[in-house]
This record gives sequence, C-alpha cells and structure tokens, in this order.
Amino acid sequence: MYTFLNNTFLPATDAAISVNDLAIQRGYGIFDFLKTVGGVPIFPDDHLDRFFNSADRMRLPVGKSREELSAIITELQRLNAIPDSGIRITLTGGVSTDSVSIGHPSLVITLHPMAPAGKDCPPPVRLISHPHQRQLPDIKTIDYLMAIHLQPYIRDRGAFDVLYHTDGAITECPRCNFFLVTAEGTLATPARNILKGITRKHLLALAADSGIPVEERDVHINELAAAREAFVTSTSRHIIPVSHVDDFRVGTAHPAAAGPVARQLNQLLHDLVMRQTLIAATDR
Amino acid sequence: MYTFLNNTFLPATDAAISVNDLAIQRGYGIFDFLKTVGGVPIFPDDHLDRFFNSADRMRLPVGKSREELSAIITELQRLNAIPDSGIRITLTGGVSTDSVSIGHPSLVITLHPMAPAGKDCPPPVRLISHPHQRQLPDIKTIDYLMAIHLQPYIRDRGAFDVLYHTDGAITECPRCNFFLVTAEGTLATPARNILKGITRKHLLALAADSGIPVEERDVHINELAAAREAFVTSTSRHIIPVSHVDDFRVGTAHPAAAGPVARQLNQLLHDLVMRQTLIAATDR
Repeated sequence: MYTFLNNTFLPATDAAISVNDLAIQRGYGIFDFLKTVGGVPIFPDDHLDRFFNSADRMRLPVGKSREELSAIITELQRLNAIPDSGIRITLTGGVSTDSVSIGHPSLVITLHPMAPAGKDCPPPVRLISHPHQRQLPDIKTIDYLMAIHLQPYIRDRGAFDVLYHTDGAITECPRCNFFLVTAEGTLATPARNILKGITRKHLLALAADSGIPVEERDVHINELAAAREAFVTSTSRHIIPVSHVDDFRVGTAHPAAAGPVARQLNQLLHDLVMRQTLIAATDR
Repeated sequence: MYTFLNNTFLPATDAAISVNDLAIQRGYGIFDFLKTVGGVPIFPDDHLDRFFNSADRMRLPVGKSREELSAIITELQRLNAIPDSGIRITLTGGVSTDSVSIGHPSLVITLHPMAPAGKDCPPPVRLISHPHQRQLPDIKTIDYLMAIHLQPYIRDRGAFDVLYHTDGAITECPRCNFFLVTAEGTLATPARNILKGITRKHLLALAADSGIPVEERDVHINELAAAREAFVTSTSRHIIPVSHVDDFRVGTAHPAAAGPVARQLNQLLHDLVMRQTLIAATDR
C-alpha cells in the first residue's frame, strides 16, 4: 500500500510525521474521508469542498489546489489498484515553534480497501445515548477523543455507537448523522451543532425529490418514542437502521428489519452512487 | 537535541510516528510536562503520578514502570545537557486496526530549554473569557483544539490566554489554573471540571501553611468585580498576575504590578523549587 505524504508517494508503513507536529502535541488537525467504488471517487467535489472549508476554518494552508489534490488522489488510486476503497485526506497543524502557533501542515492521504455499501440496508443496530457536544462541530477536525474514550462503554452494551445529545437535543453519532421518521411520516434530522455529512446532504435531496416531507430542525430524544423509524447515515455504509436507543425500542418495524423509508432511501443512495460510477466510466 | 521514542534515543529531528497513529487520526493521547531547574526534575513524583493516572483513564498501557521512566528522563537529561528545561512525556493511542480500538501506544519524551520561573512574578496579563468546557477535563489529554483555534482571537485582543467558563462558572485557562483573592482575603480556586495542576496543588498547600484561608469551590465570573487579586498558575511560570478579564480591570493593585498575595505565594513557590534543587544536589 502507498500513502501520499508531503509531495511524496511512499510505502504506507514508512509514512510518519514529527512527534512535534501539533496533531500529536495538541490534537490539532482536520481531515475528510471519501470512497471509491469501482475505481470512481464518489461525491469528490463535496468532500473537497468540505476539506478546504475545514482547512480554512482551522487556518491551515492546504498548499495544493483542488486540481492538484484530485490528481494526487488519482495517482494514489493507480499505485494501490484497489477499486473499492476509503481515502482519507488529513491535514495536520504542523511543527509549531511555540506549541500554539500553526506550523507547516503535513498533508497525508491514505487509501484502504473498503467494501461498497450494499443495495439493502445492513441489520438494525443499537445506539447508546451520551450527553456530549463536540467542540467546533461543523468542522471535520481529528477530535474523536470522546468517541474513542467511550469504546468500552459502547462495546459492553452491545451497541454500534454513541448518540450524542445535549439536554435531550440529539445531535449526531461521532461518525454518522441521525434521522428519524415521525409518526406523520416526516423525515427529521438535527440542523445545528453537527457535522453535516455528504451522505446526509444527498439523502435529504433524494427524500425531497421523492415527496417525503423533510425537516432540518432540533430533534429531541423524547421524539424517539413515537417515531416510526430511526437511522444513521455515513459515507461508508449509507443507511444503518436503528432498532434501539439505550434499552428502548425505536420504530414500528420488526427490530431485525429496516423500515420502509430507510429501505427506500438506501436504494436511492445506492442508485445515485452507481450512476456516478457509470457516468465516470462513460467519460473515460 | 535528543528525543526518546519507543526504547530509542534519537536526534529530535528524526523522531516521527506513523500517520496512522490514533493521535493523528483521532486526536487520542495523553501527556505530562515537568521542568528541570539546575538539572533537577521538579515535583517528578507528582507529574509521574498524574501521567500514569491519565494513561490508565485513557486505557493506554505505558509499557514502562515509574523507575524505568525516571531512568529514561535522567538519560535524556544527560544526552541533552540542558540544566533548565521542560520535559514532555507523551503517550499516543498507537496504530489502530479499526480506527477506534487502541493500538500499541508510542511513548515520546522530548526535552526543550526553558528558563526557570523567577523570584518575582512576571507583569500582569489580560485574559479573554470564552464559554467552553474541555472534554474529560481531569485527564491531561492532548486535546487543545479550542485553545489553538482561538489563538487569533487571543492575539487580536492583546490577551495572554483565554479563560474558560460555563454559564459564568470559571474553570481554567487551557494551560493554567485560575485563582482569585476575595475582598475578605480568601484564596478561591475552581474545584471541578478542571485539570488539577501540580503548581496549583503546591500553591494551595503553601497558602494554607501561611495562614491564608483557602477555598476550592465554584468561582463565578461575577466575583471578579470585587476580587482583590486574580492570577493563574503553571509549571513553567509559577504565578502570572491577571490585571484584566476582557475589558474589565481585576484587583486593587496597580495594573502593572502583582498583588501582595501573588507576590508572597510566588516567592514561596520559588523557595520550594530552589529547596528541591538543593536537596537533590546534597543527595548526589
């Protein structure tokens, strides 16, 4: 496997950065994560938009144009020859002269094999609620301190992940956005204090196109009781249905089955991704 | 300069860790920071206690005993031959197999020249209040994301640092503990949702020994109006007086001068550190 690090493609096991980088000293850095399916990057413009925005918000010079980044990703795909992959683009704070000022950031791009999301939703999962608000939530920083810290808590309860909330206002999972379908059939998802996912964005557009009423608004944990369905979304898996939050059943579907809205939207997401790969193949 | 990295002493510029370490991928790691004065580590047991506690709380195996860590620090001092220094001991999350499980942590010990704190307090500084609560505040993690993010805000206002609070309850600065002297002459400092500094601990003991009434309790930002003095404490500088929080004058001393309690306690801290260096010299 090859990794890109500061203008060089090198074996992944050789890619290392200074112990004095602000990422290691101060947990300061940003990243984005996109996937390729059949060799085609999915929603690359959305991911690059967000990456450049995160870098800008954190005052980190990328040192490359969008076109240069795209070319590096293409070359990394060629070197690794793994058609279905996850690609992580990380930008660190760099080595600081005074341990608080930003240095010369390191740009790291890694590629890993990753199975594409299926046409069908994966089996429903349990989430565990946890009162927490991510700092700088609308920037895709490397801060997953709480999520990693909570891993034994998540595992011991047989859960897929934590669901963060503040005073009952649901925000997100560490790496997924949260949705519920109300008793009236409206698709509701938190609007603030979250990272806005790329899958979330496309799912909202697909839902609106399909005539499903959509509300981006505060979502309270009490709303789970009456919800028909709940699910989370991510780049890697599209839609994962939620059967339980803590010890409470969510939704009216069989706990081992996805609800109809989750199934419909997952199919539409899958079709959208497949269409991207076909268009790209035709363009070649 | 030499750095210790995973069982090896190597030139500081060569010390690098994998881009797949959880420190870089997820901002997951801990550290501690102690100083040497005249070649003598100051309060080493306190710092090692806290380091091992942080590691334990974050489920990071140190892989070394206290005695081994002490011996490594002694050897690093010998190699670098810098009597007055700051020594940073960092433990990272290691390379994770699934990007959430802890890997094999990297242990990094770096040494930098650092002037000892003086007998006299440095000139008073301005702090800028900011509503924020550090996550896992009682563990010395590498998470300084907010502190680094706020640097332009701090600089633009001519401030030394931010003072975090939640709904007006003062907690701490990113790298210092906060104290005020009330109108009645009581030394008050926040008791919870903070990292308990080693200098804070010794200062509280010195104050109590000197007959200064001490209160560890919630401290509200409104209390600043009537306070005689305010100051912050850290390993590197001992006591730094605070003349302003935002645009408001704090304390009754001249804005360019430390108050009497700050001066007295700074002198006592200085004497305590000097006594440690003398005892260590005698023990040799």
